[in-house]
Amino acid sequence: MQGKLDHVAIAVRSLDEAARVYAQLGLGALRTCTMDEMGVRVGFLAAGASQIELLEPLRPDSVVGKFLARRGEGLHHICLEVDDIEASLAELAAQGVELIDRTPRQGAEGRVAFIHPRATHGVLIELVQKH
Amino acid sequence: MQGKLDHVAIAVRSLDEAARVYAQLGLGALRTCTMDEMGVRVGFLAAGASQIELLEPLRPDSVVGKFLARRGEGLHHICLEVDDIEASLAELAAQGVELIDRTPRQGAEGRVAFIHPRATHGVLIELVQKH
Repeated sequence: MQGKLDHVAIAVRSLDEAARVYAQLGLGALRTCTMDEMGVRVGFLAAGASQIELLEPLRPDSVVGKFLARRGEGLHHICLEVDDIEASLAELAAQGVELIDRTPRQGAEGRVAFIHPRATHGVLIELVQKH
Repeated sequence: MQGKLDHVAIAVRSLDEAARVYAQLGLGALRTCTMDEMGVRVGFLAAGASQIELLEPLRPDSVVGKFLARRGEGLHHICLEVDDIEASLAELAAQGVELIDRTPRQGAEGRVAFIHPRATHGVLIELVQKH
């Protein structure tokens, strides 16, 4: 397993307002999509070889909506790109790393799975295998 | 101003313990240094073109020590690399972005300055101009 930092995700109340602020930091053009089943609108901004992902909840009872209610706006998770997500998950499970997803599911930019923050010193980590 | 994601910083109680866990994610070899005046031991792990930075407080009353007491282990800040930090700070100040440091100071890998999280939807952002 070889992890490359693909993006850092930030939970925000308004993607459009946050994108205006982040544009001042010289990040790339905004690409957005909506993931209805996750209840989230997602925006990606290029930041060199990695990306900043802005997450706006569509509903207060979504994962991001609950995060905002509990913690407020701020850093939500980081995502590492891997070549073979099944092999990575099998390797981590064999090492006893606590996973949220034991099998990948469809994400905004490929197949994804989350590692539990209890296993990684408080950081929610997403793995992605790109399309 | 053109921001490239240089690193994501994580506040941890033990750098060595966290580095063992993060090694399982296939990140690069650990490089460490101690910044006495900031009261922090710093570890960098290569994660593709970006890095993961682990921050362990040397004293409970340091910035990272206080963060751990208040929030526990987890994501602490992100760092964007810029070509000319003075020009970036002047540009941000002219746009009314609230800065913690109006002039750069010495960081682990170059001259750095922090933007206030109030200005960036809850995210503490460091700018770095590398050596």
